[in-house]
Amino acid sequence: MQQTAYIRDGVYVELSEEGFGHALRVTAELHHEVSPYQSIRVVDTSSHGRMLLLDDLVMLTDRDECVYHEMIAHVPLLMHPAPERVLVVGGGDGGTIREVLRHPSVREAVLCEIDERVIEVSKTWFPAVAGALASPRCRIETRDAVAYVHDTDERFDVVLIDSTDPVGFAEGLFQDAFLQSVKRVLTPGGLYAGQNESPWLDGGRPFAGVQAALRRVFGHVAAYGAGVTTYPYGYWCFGVASDEPLTLKADDERMSALADGCNWWTPELQSAAFALPAFAKRLLTPPAG
Amino acid sequence: MQQTAYIRDGVYVELSEEGFGHALRVTAELHHEVSPYQSIRVVDTSSHGRMLLLDDLVMLTDRDECVYHEMIAHVPLLMHPAPERVLVVGGGDGGTIREVLRHPSVREAVLCEIDERVIEVSKTWFPAVAGALASPRCRIETRDAVAYVHDTDERFDVVLIDSTDPVGFAEGLFQDAFLQSVKRVLTPGGLYAGQNESPWLDGGRPFAGVQAALRRVFGHVAAYGAGVTTYPYGYWCFGVASDEPLTLKADDERMSALADGCNWWTPELQSAAFALPAFAKRLLTPPAG
Repeated sequence: MQQTAYIRDGVYVELSEEGFGHALRVTAELHHEVSPYQSIRVVDTSSHGRMLLLDDLVMLTDRDECVYHEMIAHVPLLMHPAPERVLVVGGGDGGTIREVLRHPSVREAVLCEIDERVIEVSKTWFPAVAGALASPRCRIETRDAVAYVHDTDERFDVVLIDSTDPVGFAEGLFQDAFLQSVKRVLTPGGLYAGQNESPWLDGGRPFAGVQAALRRVFGHVAAYGAGVTTYPYGYWCFGVASDEPLTLKADDERMSALADGCNWWTPELQSAAFALPAFAKRLLTPPAG
Repeated sequence: MQQTAYIRDGVYVELSEEGFGHALRVTAELHHEVSPYQSIRVVDTSSHGRMLLLDDLVMLTDRDECVYHEMIAHVPLLMHPAPERVLVVGGGDGGTIREVLRHPSVREAVLCEIDERVIEVSKTWFPAVAGALASPRCRIETRDAVAYVHDTDERFDVVLIDSTDPVGFAEGLFQDAFLQSVKRVLTPGGLYAGQNESPWLDGGRPFAGVQAALRRVFGHVAAYGAGVTTYPYGYWCFGVASDEPLTLKADDERMSALADGCNWWTPELQSAAFALPAFAKRLLTPPAG
């Protein structure tokens, strides 16, 4: 899909190809550069604090980054009995690593981000998001995740795909070959989880497409959702997959320990988030016949 | 809260007071008039089909009106064992009445809408939404709901408040005096349900305010949510209240009968929608001490 985005009269407008999106009043541009991979922009907004734009599309805001980062990390990590090694692909802002490291069982979290400039800009402008990247439990691999996951001898209990949309250099992260590589580096009972786009977007094709790819590669696949105010359509989906059956019910003690520090995720949402809206469920059901 | 909205270069932009909202590409203006109560505008959009704007704020679109109408109607009606008489306050577009009438137990649905022009414009431009208003099971009262609910001798099993935001002529619908009137016209075990704003909006004050008012008037109150793409922040909440304990689990047979015709509501969401995000839950918890 081809999105457009512009700032006019102090208002940032992002429109999907079909012509829908969101608008935020911008009070200042704080930073802009063009890395070898993308444009990286930081602006201040009146409603959401600082906002990170990659190729002029919203990646995160101070105000609602909690939703995406809590949901991409806690739901799958709680579905694993004791995750010790976690790989985060993309996610150079550090928000997913921050939430992963809140799980005391995690001994090492590896961040594989292709664009080191995203990491540096985030450290400067989003310290509350990127701060966890300095943890001794976090190791950063600044390289192409497709090659890294293909070649590495390391193994992970959970692999999280925290990527941009399936266009350009991130496209490969949604394809069968990469998902097969992810499966190869998982420990027995290990889980994939990743952002799977909004089911409203582009007739649901990107969402249904990555979910179908997951079903070709893994024995057990599910999808769950959350309301990210600054992502297109406001309702965003995540996929989780494993070759072992997925257990939605998590350990009560582990859930209680997380709850106080969360702004979106709750112990009830750990399972309720899997109740997809009817139209999204239908996108995952192959037509009869 | 004071919202602003404008169409510039073919793009409709709606911003909340704090400066956040959505944007849609407008392909044509189909209708505009100013009624005694508000501006009523119908435009065509590239992403959501026709869109109804009241005072230039989005009320509904062809594409996602299903979310709001299914969720405001089915969740509370399924919490009542056999609703026969239902009152809808506001909702002149007819979408809530359409969903109410899908419940075979309903013998009469009364629509109390202050602005008859909303009804007429909807009949002309949104026939798939307003069509149910012609049902022999629907009676229309074109008048001020505060006076009607205060004065009527009628009784209802469910009263649904399908109103605009709590500003201007709709403000009274969120206040204790009106909620006391609603309670007066409910049959024993009857339920109130209504749109309760987004918990993101205006620091959560409108959401927390109407929920607190409900708690002052009714013995049992709950809140549930859904993703309405064209409402501010994308995540919208509804309140439900009764003097009898609320039962989230509904009859399986009644739920199955509804499921095929729904685009958002599902039997699983009937209870899962009550799993509020953490920040919204906290808005409903009085501070300790």
